[in-house]
Amino acid sequence: MNFMSDNVSGAAPEILAALGEASAAGPMPSYGADPVTARLHDRMTALFGTPVTVFPVATGTAANALALSALTPPYGAVYCHAEAHINVDECGAPEMFTDGAKLIPLPGAQGKLTPQGLADALARAPVGFVHAVQPAALSLTQATEAGTVYTPDEVAALCAVAKRHGLKVHMDGARFANAVASLGCDPAEVTWRAGVDVLSFGATKNGALAAEAVVFFDRALAESFGYRRKRAGHLFSKMRFLSAQLDACLADGLWLRLAGHANAMAQMLGAGLAALPGAALRAPVEANEVFVELPETVTEGLLERGFQFYRWDGAVVRLVTAWNTRAEDVAALVAAARELASGTPAGGSEKKA
Amino acid sequence: MNFMSDNVSGAAPEILAALGEASAAGPMPSYGADPVTARLHDRMTALFGTPVTVFPVATGTAANALALSALTPPYGAVYCHAEAHINVDECGAPEMFTDGAKLIPLPGAQGKLTPQGLADALARAPVGFVHAVQPAALSLTQATEAGTVYTPDEVAALCAVAKRHGLKVHMDGARFANAVASLGCDPAEVTWRAGVDVLSFGATKNGALAAEAVVFFDRALAESFGYRRKRAGHLFSKMRFLSAQLDACLADGLWLRLAGHANAMAQMLGAGLAALPGAALRAPVEANEVFVELPETVTEGLLERGFQFYRWDGAVVRLVTAWNTRAEDVAALVAAARELASGTPAGGSEKKA
Amino acid sequence: MNFMSDNVSGAAPEILAALGEASAAGPMPSYGADPVTARLHDRMTALFGTPVTVFPVATGTAANALALSALTPPYGAVYCHAEAHINVDECGAPEMFTDGAKLIPLPGAQGKLTPQGLADALARAPVGFVHAVQPAALSLTQATEAGTVYTPDEVAALCAVAKRHGLKVHMDGARFANAVASLGCDPAEVTWRAGVDVLSFGATKNGALAAEAVVFFDRALAESFGYRRKRAGHLFSKMRFLSAQLDACLADGLWLRLAGHANAMAQMLGAGLAALPGAALRAPVEANEVFVELPETVTEGLLERGFQFYRWDGAVVRLVTAWNTRAEDVAALVAAARELASGTPAGGSEKKA
Amino acid sequence: MNFMSDNVSGAAPEILAALGEASAAGPMPSYGADPVTARLHDRMTALFGTPVTVFPVATGTAANALALSALTPPYGAVYCHAEAHINVDECGAPEMFTDGAKLIPLPGAQGKLTPQGLADALARAPVGFVHAVQPAALSLTQATEAGTVYTPDEVAALCAVAKRHGLKVHMDGARFANAVASLGCDPAEVTWRAGVDVLSFGATKNGALAAEAVVFFDRALAESFGYRRKRAGHLFSKMRFLSAQLDACLADGLWLRLAGHANAMAQMLGAGLAALPGAALRAPVEANEVFVELPETVTEGLLERGFQFYRWDGAVVRLVTAWNTRAEDVAALVAAARELASGTPAGGSEKKA
Repeated sequence: MNFMSDNVSGAAPEILAALGEASAAGPMPSYGADPVTARLHDRMTALFGTPVTVFPVATGTAANALALSALTPPYGAVYCHAEAHINVDECGAPEMFTDGAKLIPLPGAQGKLTPQGLADALARAPVGFVHAVQPAALSLTQATEAGTVYTPDEVAALCAVAKRHGLKVHMDGARFANAVASLGCDPAEVTWRAGVDVLSFGATKNGALAAEAVVFFDRALAESFGYRRKRAGHLFSKMRFLSAQLDACLADGLWLRLAGHANAMAQMLGAGLAALPGAALRAPVEANEVFVELPETVTEGLLERGFQFYRWDGAVVRLVTAWNTRAEDVAALVAAARELASGTPAGGSEKKA
Repeated sequence: MNFMSDNVSGAAPEILAALGEASAAGPMPSYGADPVTARLHDRMTALFGTPVTVFPVATGTAANALALSALTPPYGAVYCHAEAHINVDECGAPEMFTDGAKLIPLPGAQGKLTPQGLADALARAPVGFVHAVQPAALSLTQATEAGTVYTPDEVAALCAVAKRHGLKVHMDGARFANAVASLGCDPAEVTWRAGVDVLSFGATKNGALAAEAVVFFDRALAESFGYRRKRAGHLFSKMRFLSAQLDACLADGLWLRLAGHANAMAQMLGAGLAALPGAALRAPVEANEVFVELPETVTEGLLERGFQFYRWDGAVVRLVTAWNTRAEDVAALVAAARELASGTPAGGSEKKA
Repeated sequence: MNFMSDNVSGAAPEILAALGEASAAGPMPSYGADPVTARLHDRMTALFGTPVTVFPVATGTAANALALSALTPPYGAVYCHAEAHINVDECGAPEMFTDGAKLIPLPGAQGKLTPQGLADALARAPVGFVHAVQPAALSLTQATEAGTVYTPDEVAALCAVAKRHGLKVHMDGARFANAVASLGCDPAEVTWRAGVDVLSFGATKNGALAAEAVVFFDRALAESFGYRRKRAGHLFSKMRFLSAQLDACLADGLWLRLAGHANAMAQMLGAGLAALPGAALRAPVEANEVFVELPETVTEGLLERGFQFYRWDGAVVRLVTAWNTRAEDVAALVAAARELASGTPAGGSEKKA
Repeated sequence: MNFMSDNVSGAAPEILAALGEASAAGPMPSYGADPVTARLHDRMTALFGTPVTVFPVATGTAANALALSALTPPYGAVYCHAEAHINVDECGAPEMFTDGAKLIPLPGAQGKLTPQGLADALARAPVGFVHAVQPAALSLTQATEAGTVYTPDEVAALCAVAKRHGLKVHMDGARFANAVASLGCDPAEVTWRAGVDVLSFGATKNGALAAEAVVFFDRALAESFGYRRKRAGHLFSKMRFLSAQLDACLADGLWLRLAGHANAMAQMLGAGLAALPGAALRAPVEANEVFVELPETVTEGLLERGFQFYRWDGAVVRLVTAWNTRAEDVAALVAAARELASGTPAGGSEKKA
């Protein structure tokens, strides 16, 4: 049973079926001038209740780095959480795509930036000082890298600080579906109405094969994006196959159903593990990731029994659920952990010495 | 009936089926550590009869620009045909990925570079002169942009010149399958045995949804490629879905069957049109593209009747066939053209005045 | 006697003296907030009769590449003469500074672009086509690489074409002084009044140690320049020493006196050599460079006698004069050439056969 | 009296004289093939007691960013102090020149990195993990940004950690002369013998107009540098004028005399201010910078009386001395400060509350 990541899973049947349909529909204009992409645009516009410009790409790193390249000059600074994917997991893609803009990592408990922390950092920024990169953008991750979720008010408060300083706002929504499913809110509320200018709308982790949408709410910012996407090799000739995945996600609310399931599995997993003696959640489980400190014997025992997940940091492990995680697998893991925890001899911690 | 490009077509059933199978196989490690990708490696090694390092990506532009970035320093020069895709159709992707290397476009009849032309250009190159970019790589397109195909001897002769000057050799094989099907040769003969160091092995135009493989024959050059692919946003988390497409292509020789069909349709189309009064092929039809000069009344009449293709250059039009082009559609187009040609009044050319 | 280039010469005494004065003036704010730089701004504004924004840098390559980076997006195309310094002598600096924009080299007799040639190239440019770099700027070289000079009308005609297509115009004026001295016109006439947006105003070749000014006539384009200059390492801390060189050039018309002298020496050289049997100027001598075809015995003889200059292309040699070229040295070279030419047997040209 | 920076001062007479001599010496080959540059190479080799490859450039930012570009791939990580010039004062030049490598800022008291801090950071680095930039280089600043100086042993200990992890080592020696004058050691001891691969040898702050030398001890790393310097616009045509400044610095030990004087003035200043009631040095004065916490009335009073220096951080001010700082000016400042301090009412510190 694999809880390593939400990208170890396959694709949802509805999304696979959409690929088949898109293929069977006969010849279509390439590079995005096809009816599937047009339908996706309409659906995104309806979803957010405002006209948007949408660019499908295949990976989250591409979505993020390309989006940022439209928000900052090469001498710009992009503020983000120190643990943000763009800062630690993209091998310098933002720097490459922006031609050298600088990420300014900020601390924040449970994966979240705070308005005060951001305001302090911006107050220190040497605006107009030619020797320093200039504040250009804020990037928020929703859901966060710690498995928590920003409320609409939190997003709005951060965007307000950003806007006061002239920054554009990007949201890395690789797990946006999990965040919205968790909040139960209108997607508009946590994005453009709160001040977000461009969103990386993730689908890959949520049942797609490989599909993300860069959604521009500030459509003027999208002007150069077509060229940027092409020169980065991220313009698909048979665009219908990217658009079909995203379109299937949005149809009938599939994206929220899939994310809601993953979230529910994470809740179950988190609750089960948190109840163990010696266990403690590192952060509230608000999306589909569980960060939990476990006794070493439990961690080791689970791994030995074939459960797969990451050792994260010290005694903390990370378990991720997905659109297709089975409740019985979660139950099996929790049961095994319970067994291991109850059998933990007093000397269990000696192993670590 | 759409002859605009080989990317207006959908995906081959075998390839779609492979996606379904890959998805159904349960959780798999992400980022390429999966069994499908391993199988692809084995198949590519078997296909070329030599150990290769393979990196799947989703677009031809990504494959080409990433491959070149492994072959040239930022102050390097990449020699290519003036009409090469990398020079005119990638919006500066090679320049972006190589951090500013310069493409040196060379002329050449029917889309082909000549050893003499290359040797002359390299003889003029100011090697060691710090004011000029330094010769670093040669990029060949196979099949060419003119629908012709380099023979193994032609490739070898070009590579020999390149190697004599210390250049690495890249082959843009967006239509490599069409070339090999046309030549009927061992793929090794037109690649590494002839001196090619890295190949962009295309599948998208040949029945895949979006899949190309960067195949390194000179495996030392592949060392940095994993990082380069990641920082360009071209590393897929659910890699199995890229690899499965390529794997399905290679299984049972599907790639050559599909390309062979496309080639045959192009032959039929080329022969039919070339036989028309006032028509002339611009280049021999050796792959799946037909470049033919047609009387204006024929061109106009075909477009009016709903046949789709590009006006290319003056009176020349381009028609492209694909893995799923139907013989009856080709026959219909040729018949319509014949009808239009026979009805062409003597004054037909007045229209152009 | 050295006619290799105008950069083999030392610095004019007035300019050296200005460095001493700037140094002796005591502490000054750094990075351009000093009185010498302020005076330079005033002088440049007076010289051009319009408010300008001026950025001193130390090399022509820096001036050109930085200027271009303010005129084009990374997916832009910069049109220039095929022999332009930016295209062949800057080791890819424009590509580096613009993050990958593409130079589009155009042919043109005697180093000059023609309005028709430019218009044709722009007519072929695939504007709005996402697969191709987009026309963004025109770069003219004044005086040209062939030692000729564009008239104000010629500049205006080229700029008119550029502006009609939405391009910005850069002028590489590494030898701008020679051009203006040759034309005898108001500097405004060949620059902003003709449509030039930004000028690389060269001083190094004209008696300075190392100083060029990037002069923005379209001052809005200068907005990001301070950051671009800094991040490229071209912002001098002791700016006074760059500004003083440029300021001394402009004081009392020194720049035109020095350039006028160099031009006169080139005239004398050109006339003397063109009169030789078997010699022919490659282009009219309008600035301080002489491109002349000489019988091989003359070329060889001159080099043997210690005259220094470049063999350029076939039988053509290049000789460059400078602000401090002595008339007696020119006379000596011409006399030696005459002697060698008169000794040339009738069969001298057989060597070339 | 100006204590803002060591770049508010003019140039040393010996260095100005060297420019005049270099100019008067007649024509010289350009781009570094001149005898002055050759002499500089010999002097640098003698100074360091080992063969070095030297590249003169004009600014410290150019020296640093170019040097780093020779040490790291675009997907590399460069470890440095959080306050390093490359991290906070170069507007992203390192990112631009390396095509996007990432600086990893590390903390450290009094401007110094510690071997343990570096070792810990490197232990955390995800080597071989394709999602993260890869450790490539260490950059040390000597003298540091806090006005302190690394001992040879400290440099060696840091380099040892770096080398153990396969990193190359760069030293930003914008104030290298001040460091060596302070240590009284052989320059080799704090550089190549301690493990430094490439040094930015600063002269601008130490009496030159604008001159720094990139000195490669690991000469294999210098291979691409000529091209890198040229494409960044940092290759001077009249190179003699850069080389002459550096050459004059080294002749007769001028560089150490000038730096020694600046250091002595800083000592005097530091001692004088540290003795004031309510004052405290932020770091020991080991080079030519004084960071000292002063009572607000003293700071305010000094500024009112026309002494110029920076407010740095809270109550800390920075004063910098230079090669030409006069002892009487230092004495005047200290006297004024003493006067102001003695008049400080007891409630003076309340302001800070």
